[in-house]
Amino acid sequence: MTILEKTASIQQKTKTTLCVGLDTMIERLPAPLPRSLDGLVEFNKIIIEATSDCCSSYKVNFAFYERYGSEGFKALERTRQLLPDEHISIADAKRGDMGYTAESYAHSILKELDFDSITVNPYMGFDTVESFLAYPNKLVFILALTSNPGSDDFQNLLIDNVPLYRVVMRRALQWKGRADRGFVIGATHPHQLAELRQEFPNIPLLIPGVGTQGADPAEIREANGGGIAFVNSSRAILYASKEADFAEKAREVALQTASQLSV
Amino acid sequence: MTILEKTASIQQKTKTTLCVGLDTMIERLPAPLPRSLDGLVEFNKIIIEATSDCCSSYKVNFAFYERYGSEGFKALERTRQLLPDEHISIADAKRGDMGYTAESYAHSILKELDFDSITVNPYMGFDTVESFLAYPNKLVFILALTSNPGSDDFQNLLIDNVPLYRVVMRRALQWKGRADRGFVIGATHPHQLAELRQEFPNIPLLIPGVGTQGADPAEIREANGGGIAFVNSSRAILYASKEADFAEKAREVALQTASQLSV
Repeated sequence: MTILEKTASIQQKTKTTLCVGLDTMIERLPAPLPRSLDGLVEFNKIIIEATSDCCSSYKVNFAFYERYGSEGFKALERTRQLLPDEHISIADAKRGDMGYTAESYAHSILKELDFDSITVNPYMGFDTVESFLAYPNKLVFILALTSNPGSDDFQNLLIDNVPLYRVVMRRALQWKGRADRGFVIGATHPHQLAELRQEFPNIPLLIPGVGTQGADPAEIREANGGGIAFVNSSRAILYASKEADFAEKAREVALQTASQLSV
Repeated sequence: MTILEKTASIQQKTKTTLCVGLDTMIERLPAPLPRSLDGLVEFNKIIIEATSDCCSSYKVNFAFYERYGSEGFKALERTRQLLPDEHISIADAKRGDMGYTAESYAHSILKELDFDSITVNPYMGFDTVESFLAYPNKLVFILALTSNPGSDDFQNLLIDNVPLYRVVMRRALQWKGRADRGFVIGATHPHQLAELRQEFPNIPLLIPGVGTQGADPAEIREANGGGIAFVNSSRAILYASKEADFAEKAREVALQTASQLSV
C-alpha cells in the first residue's frame, strides 16, 4: 500500500481530514494526571484512544518533546509507539540541513522512528530536502505558506510577480525523489489556499491552524475543494477540559471538528 | 561580560577565528575508540583538549546526535558539558518554528543546555526567531547564504534586484530583541562575503565550509576583512587520522587552519 493509498483508506474509514496535533505541554496536563513526562505520555495515550475514530492522522511536534532534553526525546519515542498503524503519523520536525546532517535526521525520523511523514524547511534548497525525498512510501511536507504572522516577512516576497511560497512549490514539485511530496499551507490563509488549489488541485497539503489559532474548519474545507488534505487542530482538542472529563471533552471537540472537515 | 566581549576575549587569547565543528560520527571514530556513543563522547573530549588553544569556538551540530535518538541527545548533553567556558559554544540546530514551539527550543538550547549561540532558519519570519532573540547575552545566527549547492535554489532569488539572503539580513537586523545577532554565510561564497562586508563590515558571521567542503581559509580571511567571524572546519580536523595519533594529527590541522585564520 502506498502512502497515498494509506491516506485514502484511513480518510474513507474515518470520513475526515482532521489531523490531531499532539502538542502536549506538561504544564497544561489535566488535574488527574501527574505533571511529568510519564503524565504527558499517559495523556497522549488517552487522547489517542479518545480520538482515533474521528481523525485520520496524528502530528507530533518535536519541539514540545525536545524541550525536555533526552528524557523528552524518550517521551517522543514512546508517543510514536502509541500511534495507531492505520493512521498517518506526521513528524512535525521542520528540519532542513545539508548532506550527512539531513541524512541523519531522515534516518532518525523516517527509519528509526518510522514516521509516515515529516515537515521540512526549504530555505537551504534541494540538497537539504533530497535525503528525505529518498525514502519510498513517505510523504514529505515542505513548508510553503505557514500559519504564523511572520509568514508574511519572506514567504510573500515577489519574485517576478510570483510569491516566494509559490516559487518554492513549483520548484519542489520538480525535484527528484521517491517520496510523495506535499506542502504546509497555514489554515490562516484561506484565500491563498483556494487560489493554490487552482494550480495544484490534488497535491497533499498539511493545513495547520484550525482551532486555537482561529481558522474556521468549514471555510478551510471549502477553500481546499476536495484536494488531499491533513487539517490540523491541536490545543482546542487537547485542552478542551482541565478536569477528569478531559478525554470525553477532547472527543467532543474532535468529533465536531471532524464533521466540519468531512471527506 | 557581553557575548561580543567574550568573543573578543577568546579570539585575542587564541589569535584565531577558527571554530571547530564537532560533527562526530560513530562510524568514523579512530581505531582505538569503541564504536559507541561513549566512544563518541570520549572522542569529543580528546579533540577538545587537543584544540582548545587553537580555536575560539566550538560548534555542535545537533543532527549528528539526534540521529541516535534519546541516547544521542544524552551524548550531546555530555558533549556540551565538555566545552570550555571561555570558548563560544554554538548550537548548530537550524531551528525555526512558531510561538510556544520556538520558545521550547530556545529554552532547551539557550537555557537548559546554556549554549552561547544558536543557528536559526528565517523562512517562517520574525515571530519564529523572536523567542531566540529574547535571551540577553546570546548570539543568534540566522541562516542567510549557506555553504551547500542548494543555497542557489532560493537564497539567490532576486526581489527588486536584491537577492533573498540580503533581504533576510536587512530585515533581521531591524528585528527587536535582546540577543546579539549574526548570519550564516557559507565559506563557499567568498565573493559574496567580500561584497557583504561592504554593507555589514562588523556584523558577526558564522562561516562554515572550510576544509572538507573545499573553501580556502586564507581566501575567507581576506574576504572577511577583519569583521567578527567564526570560521568553521569540522571533518578536516576531526578525521585527520584514523589511527592512535588522531589527537596529534587533529591538533596539527587545527593549528595550521588557525594560523590561516589569524586575527
